[in-house]
Amino acid sequence: MTVLVFLDSAFPDGRPADAGVPQLMINDLGVTRGDGIFESLLAVDGVPRKPGAHLDRMASSAQLLDLALPPRDAWERAIATALALHTEASAAGTGSAARAAVKLVVTRGVEGAGTPTAWVQVTAAPDASRQRTEGIKVLLLDRGYDSLAAARAPWLLLGAKTLSYAVNMAALRYVRANGADDAIFTSSDGKVLEGPTSTVVLARERNGVRTLLTPERKSGILAGTTQDALFRAAEAAGWELGYGPLVPEDLFAADGVWLASSIRLLVPVRSIDGRELPFSEALNTELTKLADAAL
Amino acid sequence: MTVLVFLDSAFPDGRPADAGVPQLMINDLGVTRGDGIFESLLAVDGVPRKPGAHLDRMASSAQLLDLALPPRDAWERAIATALALHTEASAAGTGSAARAAVKLVVTRGVEGAGTPTAWVQVTAAPDASRQRTEGIKVLLLDRGYDSLAAARAPWLLLGAKTLSYAVNMAALRYVRANGADDAIFTSSDGKVLEGPTSTVVLARERNGVRTLLTPERKSGILAGTTQDALFRAAEAAGWELGYGPLVPEDLFAADGVWLASSIRLLVPVRSIDGRELPFSEALNTELTKLADAAL
Repeated sequence: MTVLVFLDSAFPDGRPADAGVPQLMINDLGVTRGDGIFESLLAVDGVPRKPGAHLDRMASSAQLLDLALPPRDAWERAIATALALHTEASAAGTGSAARAAVKLVVTRGVEGAGTPTAWVQVTAAPDASRQRTEGIKVLLLDRGYDSLAAARAPWLLLGAKTLSYAVNMAALRYVRANGADDAIFTSSDGKVLEGPTSTVVLARERNGVRTLLTPERKSGILAGTTQDALFRAAEAAGWELGYGPLVPEDLFAADGVWLASSIRLLVPVRSIDGRELPFSEALNTELTKLADAAL
Repeated sequence: MTVLVFLDSAFPDGRPADAGVPQLMINDLGVTRGDGIFESLLAVDGVPRKPGAHLDRMASSAQLLDLALPPRDAWERAIATALALHTEASAAGTGSAARAAVKLVVTRGVEGAGTPTAWVQVTAAPDASRQRTEGIKVLLLDRGYDSLAAARAPWLLLGAKTLSYAVNMAALRYVRANGADDAIFTSSDGKVLEGPTSTVVLARERNGVRTLLTPERKSGILAGTTQDALFRAAEAAGWELGYGPLVPEDLFAADGVWLASSIRLLVPVRSIDGRELPFSEALNTELTKLADAAL
């Protein structure tokens, strides 16, 4: 069951609409040019997790695309409306409202109109519990860009979460056709970047010091909201934090590697390019608890 | 006035629909992931120009994306239906049917449905006559990829005309904010690639031999249908043909540079990065005639 609420200045709490019928114009730049941005966040029992971090990142994406964004409180109200409708519909029907996926989308709007199209969509979150306990197989895929491209070429929109995700989807099709579950992108100059829909996190213990690491953001990757929430919780629990540059050998030398994302949360990587990685169930449980508590 | 015809197996000639009301589902992967492909072609007096080349390229894009494509004759019929409706509507109203822009779009369809969404859209073609005679100012923009990326990383979808055009649109916004009209992308290793919506063509005469050149396709650029039609006509008229690799200095050393695309056709580039280029009105007229006759 999908709940849909449009942002509409005539409706302060958002305008609910039927997601079961067509709602988008054929010449919306979101579809004709992939020209828009999005966020995906988790809601548990009707409460959105880290909405502030997602709205912050959406504002940053909008700035990179020079895209007019509806005001923040309009988003907050539309999210609340959509979650209330989803909880209501789930209680009435067979659906479960416990874990919901909330998608925020803004496109540049219909060609020539100059008004963005913006909506909130809520569906039941897919069950990722098996991946979270059993882990996944990953392939390293070249992202084509070098790690300095973001700094010198802002029109590449590196670091913006745009609707132009065809390459991310193609990467996932590629790894699945080749016996793996997910990908980690590397830059053409050999740095670890990110997954097509996730942030890379690794843990290592050296001389009694436990450190969580993630690639540096200036390499053109998306700011991971789940990775960031985990890092803050881990720091409070005594972990050291580190930010790249990282190379693939760092992944193989770590005590554990995870992909972090808002809906699936922390998923342990069990192998990369067919090479098995260290995996500790205790460490996976510890980090999962930190991430869950931090949300 | 916009004419819309969906490809629909229940309607052999296509299913006309009202482009003035929403026709797309909110969770169509075309909008949520930019996951689809398109073609834009010109029609003059109701007759599509080089439809075969566009359908060939669409098939090639579909293969790169592993996307199910409706059969070729379904496209041909839907295009004919849409153009007939457009001619009819233009005759009845104030619109001009003389030059129409025909857009073909296929998305991966609604999430989970596994059926592509496909349509033909016809609008009046924008008037590019001023750019065609007066020319445009261009900036060189780094595309971030090196010229070998396409060969080693098929998941980058280089050479496919996808709906994920946010970077192309950002490049156009960037150049317009900086006093220019269009962009020519270069690779991170310094090769000339293509425009965000066009193919680069240059002419040069050396020792009485006249040659048309364009960047080599293996550098990850789109196969230009207008450039190709021009090249075939020019060859028949005695021109030599050449295919890159080209570097920016080749553009400055040419006797003329053009951007070729299906709707705007040949547009002369009058300056690059503020540096004036040679321009011959006679040569522009000659190549424009060749391109127009070849379509």
